[in-house]
This record gives sequence, C-alpha cells and structure tokens, in this order.
Amino acid sequence: MAKMNAFYAQSGGVTAVINASAAGVIEAAREHKDKIGKVYAGLNGIVGALQEELIDTSKESASTIAALRHTPSGAFGSCRYKLKGFDENQAEYQRLIEVFRAHNIGYFFYNGGGDSADTCLKVAQMSHHMGFPIQAIHIPKTVDNDLPFTDCSPGFGSVAKYVAVSTKEASMDVASMARSSTKVFILEVMGRHAGWIAAASALAAEQAGDPPHIILLPEVPFERERFIAEVERCVSEHGYCVIVASEGTQYKDGALLAGSIHKDAFGHQQLGGVAPTLASMIKKAHGYKYHWALADYLQRSARHIASKTDVEQAYAVGRAAVEKALKGKHSIMVTIERKESARYGWTIGEAPLEKVANVEKKMPRSFISKDGYGITAKGRAYLAPLIEGEDYPPYKHGIPQYARLKKVMVAKKINTPFTV
Amino acid sequence: MAKMNAFYAQSGGVTAVINASAAGVIEAAREHKDKIGKVYAGLNGIVGALQEELIDTSKESASTIAALRHTPSGAFGSCRYKLKGFDENQAEYQRLIEVFRAHNIGYFFYNGGGDSADTCLKVAQMSHHMGFPIQAIHIPKTVDNDLPFTDCSPGFGSVAKYVAVSTKEASMDVASMARSSTKVFILEVMGRHAGWIAAASALAAEQAGDPPHIILLPEVPFERERFIAEVERCVSEHGYCVIVASEGTQYKDGALLAGSIHKDAFGHQQLGGVAPTLASMIKKAHGYKYHWALADYLQRSARHIASKTDVEQAYAVGRAAVEKALKGKHSIMVTIERKESARYGWTIGEAPLEKVANVEKKMPRSFISKDGYGITAKGRAYLAPLIEGEDYPPYKHGIPQYARLKKVMVAKKINTPFTV
Repeated sequence: MAKMNAFYAQSGGVTAVINASAAGVIEAAREHKDKIGKVYAGLNGIVGALQEELIDTSKESASTIAALRHTPSGAFGSCRYKLKGFDENQAEYQRLIEVFRAHNIGYFFYNGGGDSADTCLKVAQMSHHMGFPIQAIHIPKTVDNDLPFTDCSPGFGSVAKYVAVSTKEASMDVASMARSSTKVFILEVMGRHAGWIAAASALAAEQAGDPPHIILLPEVPFERERFIAEVERCVSEHGYCVIVASEGTQYKDGALLAGSIHKDAFGHQQLGGVAPTLASMIKKAHGYKYHWALADYLQRSARHIASKTDVEQAYAVGRAAVEKALKGKHSIMVTIERKESARYGWTIGEAPLEKVANVEKKMPRSFISKDGYGITAKGRAYLAPLIEGEDYPPYKHGIPQYARLKKVMVAKKINTPFTV
Repeated sequence: MAKMNAFYAQSGGVTAVINASAAGVIEAAREHKDKIGKVYAGLNGIVGALQEELIDTSKESASTIAALRHTPSGAFGSCRYKLKGFDENQAEYQRLIEVFRAHNIGYFFYNGGGDSADTCLKVAQMSHHMGFPIQAIHIPKTVDNDLPFTDCSPGFGSVAKYVAVSTKEASMDVASMARSSTKVFILEVMGRHAGWIAAASALAAEQAGDPPHIILLPEVPFERERFIAEVERCVSEHGYCVIVASEGTQYKDGALLAGSIHKDAFGHQQLGGVAPTLASMIKKAHGYKYHWALADYLQRSARHIASKTDVEQAYAVGRAAVEKALKGKHSIMVTIERKESARYGWTIGEAPLEKVANVEKKMPRSFISKDGYGITAKGRAYLAPLIEGEDYPPYKHGIPQYARLKKVMVAKKINTPFTV
C-alpha cells in the first residue's frame, strides 16, 4: 500500500491524560515514516476534519510531542459534536472521506468515548462504501470509565486519584475542627450515569472508619430519610460525616437531586447542584454546620496529581492504535486487559467497534456495598491499582510546565466550506 | 529557671502546613530536654487547655513527629473558639493559667491567626498578673495571608500554589473545548476580607493573554455592568473567559455577591455562592455556556501540591518559637522577613504582640492592576516566590501517607470541669 498520512482527533470531554495518547500516536507514527506520512490532527476534534482545519503535527518538535505526555486537556482542541445517524445525514460522512482523500489520509485514529466509537465505525464503513478504505481505529478515553470491553478507560484513573486524594485531605481538615465547627462535608464529583468516580473516593479510606462515610452513586436510588439517618449516625459515631456524591445521584423514579430549581437574584432559573441540595436537607434535619465543594473541571484536568498507571495506559493505547493499524487492523477499539494475577498487571487488547459503539458500562452491583453507601472488597480490588503511582509534570517557578503547540495548519485543498 | 513543660495549640482554620509548624516546635523542644520538659498539645486547640485535655506528644515517635511536616490539617485538632475580652471574662484566662500551673507549663506556643495572637498576648499578661509568668509566643498561621509585620503567613503559599495550578489546569480544559462547549469558567476561592488567594491565581498566567482573565477581589468594588462587558470582551478576544473570584467579592456598598438568597426545594433559605451568582449574571447577559467550581476545603488542605517554600517557612517558625523562648523572649509573634535581594530569600524575625493583635493586612493597591481585574508586576514579584518549589508527601498504593497520632492524654490534675 502506498504511504498514507494519518488523522488524529480528540473527542468529547477532555482528560488529564488524553494528550498522552496523542503523544503515543505521534511518536509511534514517527518511528514508521516508511509506512506513515504525516500525522494531521483535527483542530477541535472531528469538526476540524469536516472544516478541513488540520494541524500538521510534523511541525512540532520531538520535545513538544514528548511533553504532551504530561500535559492535561486536549492540546489540539476537542468538541462535543456527534455526527448524525448514517441515514439522516450521509453528507457529513461523505465530507469526511472527501477531506481524507484530498489529504491522502489512510489512517483515522479517533480518541474519545462511546459516541466517538460509533463515529469511528461509521467512518470506516463509509470509507469502504466510497471506495477509499480508511483504517479507522478507536483510542479509548473517558473519565466516566463507562466504555465496554476494556478493563478501564484512560482518563478515569487520574480523576479517581484526584478524588481519592482530595477526599482524604478535606476529610482530615473537617475531622480536625468538627468539635467546634463544620460537622458535615460534601464533595460533588462527576458521573451522570455511572458512579465510578464517586466510588473511587472510597480509596481515601485506609482503615476501618476512615472517611468518606457516605458515597452516593447514580446506580443506587437515593432515599432521603435513610440518608438523613445515616448522616446522624456518622456524626454521633465519628463526630463528623464526609459525603461524596455523584452529580447523577437520583431518586428511585429517576428524578435527579440536582434537579431542584433555584431562582437566583436576577430571576434567572438555574439548576441547583447535588451538594447544596444535600447540604440543605441535612441543615434542615439536623442543623449541622456544613461545607461543600464542587470540583467540576478541576478533577478531570488535574494532571499535577495524575495516576502513573493511567498515564502509562493512555500512552500505550495511543501507540498500540498505530501499531495495530500497521498490521492491517481496522474498525477496532484498543483495549486494556487486566492480567489474571495476584499482583496487578495489564496488557493491550482490542475489541470490534460493532460491539463497542454506544454500549455503556455501569458499576457492577457486586462492587457496591449492601447499604449502597460504599464499595465492596471486590470493588476496591478493581479500583485500587488504577490510581497507583505518581507521575509529576516538570515545574518552573512553582507552576507545572505544560506543552504549548505551534499548531501550524495544513493548506486547504477543498475550496467548498462546510458548516457544522 | 526550673525545667518547665511546654504547651502547643492549633487555632482557627487549619492549613496544609500548620502541622509542619507543630513538627518544628516538638523537634526543637526535644533537642533541649535539659530546659524543656514535655510538650503538651491542646486537644482541639485552646479548648483543650481550658478543659484540661492535653495530648502528651512525648508518646509520639520521632518518625510520627517528622511525618507531621508533610501532613495537612490540624493533627491535634483546632477550634474556632475566641476567648472573650479580659474584662468580660477573666475566668477563662484564670482557668488557663490554673491548668498551666497544674501541669508545670512555662511555655505557651499558640499557632494561629490574628485572633490567636490576641489570645496569646492576653495569656502572657494574665500569667504575669497571676504570678505564674508564662512565655507566650505566637506562631503565625493563616491561609488568608492577612497577618501584619510578617512578609507572608505560613499556610498561604500552599493555597496560593493550589489555586494557581488548578486555575492553569482548568483553564486549559476550557480552552480546548470552548469552540463548541463551555465558554466561561469561574473558580470561587477563599478570602472574605482580603484577596490574596484569588490574586495568586494570576501566577497561572505565564504569557500575555494567558488565563485567568478576570480576578475579583474584595478590595475592588464589584461593578456588574463593567464585569459583564469585560467577560464579553474576553470571549470575543480569546474564545473563552476564566474568572477567579474571592468569596468576599462585594459591591461598593459592601453587599456581598454571595448574599443572594436562594430558596431550595425544601423551602430552606441558603446563601448562594459568588460563583453561581456570577454565572447566572453572565448567562442572563450573554447566554454563554458556563461551568464553575467551588474549591472550599480542598484548597487549604491540599498538602499533595504544597509549596516547598511554605512548608519550609511553616517548619522554621515553629522551631524559631522554641529557640526564641529559650532565649527568654515572650509576648512576640515569630515573623518571616523577606531579604532585600534580587533573588528571593527570607529570614526569621519577630514582632511584639501588642502591635500584631487584631490588625488585618489587606492587599496594597499597588499590587492590583488599574482595572482591578488582575495584579501588577509588583504584586507578581511578591507572590511568585511563595509558591516556589514542590514538597511531595510519600505515597502508598496511590494515596499520600499522612501521620496518624496516638494522642495519649495527660492525666488530669484539676477535678473541676470547665464548660466552654
């Protein structure tokens, strides 16, 4: 096969380690200049391909690409753009192939979650259909850890570590002042449909009785009275109560706790968060002094406290995507397989995209404690290795030094603009 | 003077490095066993002294005390208990001296902010008045950085580093998705009266145009229209806008932005935060998609990203308190003095408590940019060295290993209980 260029794009919510996958792709491709020409990255994800806004990564130095390994967020830009279904909108897929053909792109590496796995598959199918077959390979990424067939999703381990460490530290703060001050602390974390991130906070507990005392997961229907009673039990037993709540915490009927509407000072309706909602429930029931934190983007961008395991896996799936493509593989998602051994170990595997696309992996009930407020030994055994190890970025004057790209754009070859 | 014991207590809001000061006190005292007997720590601060709940630190191993240097929060417990004025309530001061006399305590090391400096002075005065002179020395601590006479307050540098690093990371997240997603990000940080913590977020900017784009300080009256316009200018110029707001952000008339009242789903009135209030203003004016984070206790307990400079200073002021006491000094606060040199350097100094007590150090106007939304070169020159250097705690299984004390209590010698 003639030497073809490669296209790489980042999709959906970014993570602390998605750029490590980019580094893996680009460094692996540079090692095979005989087979792969240039690696073009989509500016702001797939939208960059649709609009023919391609970043020429060959213009970035080896040290800059290496620095991507310790740089959070999406260095090339990401987007929340889901291509429409095949039948409703073939034009978008045709446009993609048109752009890929124009730039001699034979490899499509798409770095994202469930939606992008679906897009990746569609691109592969359409490219064959249009007689310009492209090797489309999906590189897993999501802090939600909800991708199927892979033991874990790159990006999750680092959020898990951030949440576990932050829960431990904030809990010690509360414990040291609970007698005369704050008795209840609530940390709201990400996770709309799956509670993986909140569950990881349990790793902060190293001994029986250690916080967090209550973890709220979307998988476990919220029962207000039982929750209120549990908080009281915690405060009387420990002197304080630390709660970690998923943003997707919901009642049995599926109504989100975050759904309570507040009217702010300007008459503008806004969605109240889970944490303040829980806080006011507790205040009303017990009158305890409370504090709450909303980590929001801090949790998924916290490269300064990334999991070494997560960084290594993110880099490895990027490299593997290129190596598998060179072996002629396509329409697959690279996966992480956990070794069947006492000591944690992992290898790289793969799964066919037909099976991956749009399947969501929830937390197994066997990982959740009987009362629904914590995790089991089995859950801990799964989660613990994912936050193992530290991988600090370099610092200068007290600030982490993250990569800054030149982002040299590739000259356009198609003159018809495309609006998304 | 006969060999006397020492009393050490932690006061007010805890920090990531207050235990480093405790380590400094205890290790220095252990080096002078000829002059100082045991170091007793107050359980939950000064309340522990009033209730004769004293922790015998001699029962803690050298390695445990050394580990306090990298352990956040108040290991002996702290409290928000301000002794009343001399005249209203001499009983409390008399009780303190009574307890100190009963346990042969000749040294009083009080680790806290402005209020505790006042308490420290009162204890010194009362002890002389009662004929049992105690050498009271104040060890500075406050994340608010508002203590006078000292160049900075131990505890501040680490919060400053956490806020600067978090602002940088979250900003990169927003920047990478702004085109199709969130355009405005707001981080609410501590600082009711002084904007030191919010100001430190400016250190995240290493090049012109880098975020944060708008910093809101209590020192600068909030003007809604000007703010709304500035946000729009930022989004059109950079594609997104990152705002760091002090919890104490207020209007010209002193009304707090955080004062807007929300009625939650349960009819319970709660104080809305600054971040959501700003977010809804922006949403109403521009319709931009926004996200916001509330760091709360995470920022002051984040020992995992502590400033090395801050840790060293916190430890040094603890040691210095003991060394100064042994030189016969009392009724002073240990201070940090910045050297008059191009390269940052510092030494230990002292200030008389009469002058320190209840004086609050605001940010000088010369540190704040003309438009009030950022800091000047002078402000940066002051702040930058305080976040210099990293001082990581040890980790095990991905979790920082923080000290756990045995907290062996000293047998009570006074049988009359004292209720606070």
